Amino acid sequence: MKKPLILISNDDSIFAGGIKALVEVAQTLGEVIVVAPALPQSAQSHAITISGPLRLKKSDIFQGVEAYTVNGTPVDSIKMANYVILKDRKPDIVLSGINHGSNASINILYSGTMAAAMEGSLENINSIGFSLLDYSPTADFEPCKPFVKTIIEQVLENGIEHSNLLNVNIPNLPTDEIKGIRICRQAMGIWKESFVEKEDPFGRPYYWLTGAFVSDDEGDDSDIYALNEGYISVVPSMHDLTAYKSMDWMKESFRGYE
Amino acid sequence: MKKPLILISNDDSIFAGGIKALVEVAQTLGEVIVVAPALPQSAQSHAITISGPLRLKKSDIFQGVEAYTVNGTPVDSIKMANYVILKDRKPDIVLSGINHGSNASINILYSGTMAAAMEGSLENINSIGFSLLDYSPTADFEPCKPFVKTIIEQVLENGIEHSNLLNVNIPNLPTDEIKGIRICRQAMGIWKESFVEKEDPFGRPYYWLTGAFVSDDEGDDSDIYALNEGYISVVPSMHDLTAYKSMDWMKESFRGYE
Repeated sequence: MKKPLILISNDDSIFAGGIKALVEVAQTLGEVIVVAPALPQSAQSHAITISGPLRLKKSDIFQGVEAYTVNGTPVDSIKMANYVILKDRKPDIVLSGINHGSNASINILYSGTMAAAMEGSLENINSIGFSLLDYSPTADFEPCKPFVKTIIEQVLENGIEHSNLLNVNIPNLPTDEIKGIRICRQAMGIWKESFVEKEDPFGRPYYWLTGAFVSDDEGDDSDIYALNEGYISVVPSMHDLTAYKSMDWMKESFRGYE
Repeated sequence: MKKPLILISNDDSIFAGGIKALVEVAQTLGEVIVVAPALPQSAQSHAITISGPLRLKKSDIFQGVEAYTVNGTPVDSIKMANYVILKDRKPDIVLSGINHGSNASINILYSGTMAAAMEGSLENINSIGFSLLDYSPTADFEPCKPFVKTIIEQVLENGIEHSNLLNVNIPNLPTDEIKGIRICRQAMGIWKESFVEKEDPFGRPYYWLTGAFVSDDEGDDSDIYALNEGYISVVPSMHDLTAYKSMDWMKESFRGYE
């Protein structure tokens, strides 16, 4: 069997520990190409750069792996990988991460890591975003590597039916304390924000966003629940945001305006 | 009945023609507060500013309307509106737009306008993003105003069942040529990108993203179809990205790893 072509990106930049760990796992499974932001792009979501130019720079950061930095967002990186670098070659899989910090629940919406994976899925490529529940720049990714490898192997071998995007979150535990892998739904949740208000050196006020994630989702089938129990959560995801359940009611509500 | 509190934002900045039109419509329906980006933020998606400070500036751009600019993204604007300005007052509805250009189909994922509306929906507020199919900065929003008003009135009066987020796109036609309002699903589609490659004044290469939206969705129930037929498309939307259809298959595929 031909070695699969594995495209890797992230949002913490090519210099982060999480992408290094992901490259190390992927190298055992196929041909790896890395196209990742030159600077941290956390919480950049699905943003793209349209009002300015992008630069592409070859990087020798990973031994034996073709790698590039882009001075843009995670989604810019995937677009440049597909349309500038790979062109007629299509990746067999897109991997993003491993993110330093959780992308469970609604964090999928803010996350640059998950947006890179979603951009892969929009191109009809099976795509997986990985996140470790440790925000530290020096987080230890070794314990989760066997699970990351298993999930990539499964998808390379069997694909994903009725989805082409997985949101994988990993509890920050030693390998033998991770209880297993659970297929979950996205938990409901919200960021209860607060803004720190201070004055800059010139006496002008500024605000700095800070907040706390809160979930009152009580189901036992959510990603947050699985993570709290010590399991890796895998949420099959999609980019069709239509609220199909609402269609009939909406049609009734807008009857007469058609 | 108490006048509803209407929070308005957008992604084309507070100086755009589209938000002016939306404010004018909303003023006839309730108390309006505007919190919008100081600079254009198209294609910023659900990005938020976490690595730097935000500034809030009062604006008298709209006569008789409390208005502020934020030097950040559309989602920053909604967060500052809710947590810094309004605090214990909760808007009855969040409106975003009117965007200069389409946010139909998968454009909902890239759009700052729709992200502002989605941020409202995450706060459990009924939220509507409006977009006119004309990218021009001098687009004429007068013809669509009666329809925009009708949709806001409907939602203020009846709410939205099984959803709290509407993606409304409006064909660029005279009022009497708009055929009506259709409830739709999000069309499948993709941006086929190309990057213009040039050299900067110093001889260094750069890339500039450009592309064409392509949809091979042949259904007659999609937003793209309705717009092509001359209808306004209304897609009830959601922020739960779980691919529920995939759950059973995924559980089977990962049996043994639980």
